[in-house]
Amino acid sequence: MALIVQKYGGTSVKDLDRIRSVAQRIKNAHDEGHRVVVVVSARGGVTNRLIADAKALHPEPDDREMDVLLTIGEQETIALTTIALHAIGVPAVSRTGGQAGIFTDAVHTKARIVEIRGGDLREQLNGGKVVILAGFQGINANGHVTTLGRGGSDLSAIAIAAALKADLCQIFTDVDGVYTADPRIVPEARKIPEIKYEEMLELASLGSKVMQSRAVEFANKYGVVFEVRSSYNDNPGTIVKAQTTLEDVLVRGVACDKNQTKVVVSDIPDQPGAAAQIFRSLAEAQVNVDMIVQNVGRQGIANLTFTVPADDAYKAERAVSRCLDSLGAGKVSLTDRIAKVSIVGVGMQSHSGVASRMFTTLAEHGINIQMISTSEIKISVAISLDSADDAVRVLHRAFALDQ
Amino acid sequence: MALIVQKYGGTSVKDLDRIRSVAQRIKNAHDEGHRVVVVVSARGGVTNRLIADAKALHPEPDDREMDVLLTIGEQETIALTTIALHAIGVPAVSRTGGQAGIFTDAVHTKARIVEIRGGDLREQLNGGKVVILAGFQGINANGHVTTLGRGGSDLSAIAIAAALKADLCQIFTDVDGVYTADPRIVPEARKIPEIKYEEMLELASLGSKVMQSRAVEFANKYGVVFEVRSSYNDNPGTIVKAQTTLEDVLVRGVACDKNQTKVVVSDIPDQPGAAAQIFRSLAEAQVNVDMIVQNVGRQGIANLTFTVPADDAYKAERAVSRCLDSLGAGKVSLTDRIAKVSIVGVGMQSHSGVASRMFTTLAEHGINIQMISTSEIKISVAISLDSADDAVRVLHRAFALDQ
Repeated sequence: MALIVQKYGGTSVKDLDRIRSVAQRIKNAHDEGHRVVVVVSARGGVTNRLIADAKALHPEPDDREMDVLLTIGEQETIALTTIALHAIGVPAVSRTGGQAGIFTDAVHTKARIVEIRGGDLREQLNGGKVVILAGFQGINANGHVTTLGRGGSDLSAIAIAAALKADLCQIFTDVDGVYTADPRIVPEARKIPEIKYEEMLELASLGSKVMQSRAVEFANKYGVVFEVRSSYNDNPGTIVKAQTTLEDVLVRGVACDKNQTKVVVSDIPDQPGAAAQIFRSLAEAQVNVDMIVQNVGRQGIANLTFTVPADDAYKAERAVSRCLDSLGAGKVSLTDRIAKVSIVGVGMQSHSGVASRMFTTLAEHGINIQMISTSEIKISVAISLDSADDAVRVLHRAFALDQ
Repeated sequence: MALIVQKYGGTSVKDLDRIRSVAQRIKNAHDEGHRVVVVVSARGGVTNRLIADAKALHPEPDDREMDVLLTIGEQETIALTTIALHAIGVPAVSRTGGQAGIFTDAVHTKARIVEIRGGDLREQLNGGKVVILAGFQGINANGHVTTLGRGGSDLSAIAIAAALKADLCQIFTDVDGVYTADPRIVPEARKIPEIKYEEMLELASLGSKVMQSRAVEFANKYGVVFEVRSSYNDNPGTIVKAQTTLEDVLVRGVACDKNQTKVVVSDIPDQPGAAAQIFRSLAEAQVNVDMIVQNVGRQGIANLTFTVPADDAYKAERAVSRCLDSLGAGKVSLTDRIAKVSIVGVGMQSHSGVASRMFTTLAEHGINIQMISTSEIKISVAISLDSADDAVRVLHRAFALDQ
């Protein structure tokens, strides 16, 4: 008689057949006597279609109105999923984010959860009903609908699990769990049975598309243990928690992000504040800068290289250009896309030699490292896009992740 | 500086081009200095698609969940229309039914409006903003979304006009106004400049698809003067109000409903309560019975004939069959569809000879009358579907409506 929160993403509810299949999976949990809250996303493709409509009307549509628009995606799914449950005899009721008392701040399109009051969720659960909750959305203090940003449904699920003190939170997705590397690149990649929040966070932010890092951060903060598993089969997934029962491993997995562009700013005066001005300008343009290398050349002239998500490349170029105009010096250029390949593992905190083994392995295979960045539990290198898959494979083998 | 409520139906906002065109029309009113509230429906086809999805999952989907599902249609339109207004420089903000404080009872899918609190509409209008309001929807005392039933957006517009004491309420639709007859049947039909609520009500309930009768009833009750006009041109439409400035005419228009089926119940015992039982059974099956004729034949055996909307014909047949089983006598049969042709006008209250002229005209043209029903301001006849258009044309001429 556990209280279980399940979350199903857009591909898991993309058409009526998939919704029926999700309903059957929910019924199984309900038939076992559990109290079940289900968080659902918009049907696959719906959100992108709505965004396209809005942008066809206005290049930069108002954030508040975008939230009014986008929340209909999840509202459609909660009603259809509830109706599908009724069809197989499961008592169920839908709730929007507002009805579940998911209160956020007023920052439309990327609101932060402030408080979860829960609405009548406990009453509905105690009354034997499955509650189908709209993910991705909340309501602010003035009664306006808000959205939590990309991947927000994962965050909704983790947050409602924390608020209800759920025994289990299951994130159903289209992959079996978290792997030591992308199985499409490394066929011998293995599913990781348990992983720590920090490792999951690094993997999430490094291009493993399983989950958004905000949801993992929230789980870490509130100690919500969750499982990432497939909505297509009954295989156990990956459990994410604070302490794994297994010994810490040196390297938990290899991640690869092929969606980065390198920006080179050259010939800037090597004076205090020049780099700061450039990064302030990028921050104002809401460009997330990732890896950074600065080197000072001859005669007090500096070069600055950094990577940004490929989608933001032109926005970054414009922001830097504006800044260079006011500095009166320097030039900016975009290169082709590059790949960022990373190894992640909490074990590397207490072991030396991991970086050295990584660099040696890449060198032995003739892969040139363009940039390096590190944190306590990860090492990332920027390399050419062509070498990305090779790099992932040789690193996976070098750290014996296939064993 | 008037306060204007405009309402645009589903065909007026069916695609992005039409939404842009509606935005331009709203801008014109705003530019003239008026305060404008705009009620919009779901984009044409959206509601039917959602209903089809729900019914594919469950033959009789839950009413509450249907309301959660269907309200997304209008929510999509309010956001897109608001964004389209921003694109042409008009300050605008969207509001759902709940946000506008449109409180209803808890009868999902056909809720009745209980109270309109208005939310912050007056503040927004006083702040210079156009308010785009979702039609068809409200909220009940427990915070659950409700819908007002078919044609509910007209009702939303009339009700919000009453609550805000609007100076003008314009119902934009795909016809130019109310005509003396359907111009597709009678090319010389004329647009009626002004019409009384009662006449509009009769026309609405007699197959003129301009507006649902509930909205007209509401306008009549609260004295809301409104105009029915086209969203495709700038022609003046038809003003609907309590007292027209023109003299009452004998016959204001000819209406035709081709969507009726005649049900014949024969050989029922002519005993007290037999007919009552049949109609109670039909009421329980939620079949709206329209015209009724009962005649007693020889030996105490009665026949009963009535018409129902064609969509309800089989439901009606089943309901009557069940009832005849318990009576132990009688049989029921459906005929082909019939047409109901009506003449409407408040003037006929004080004039005799209108019915006689109607029947004579039809007889002269060889059109056989199968059933007759009358009210103070209308006379309807059931005739064969084949003769319907002919009947409308000859009656239109007989009552000089083309002059």
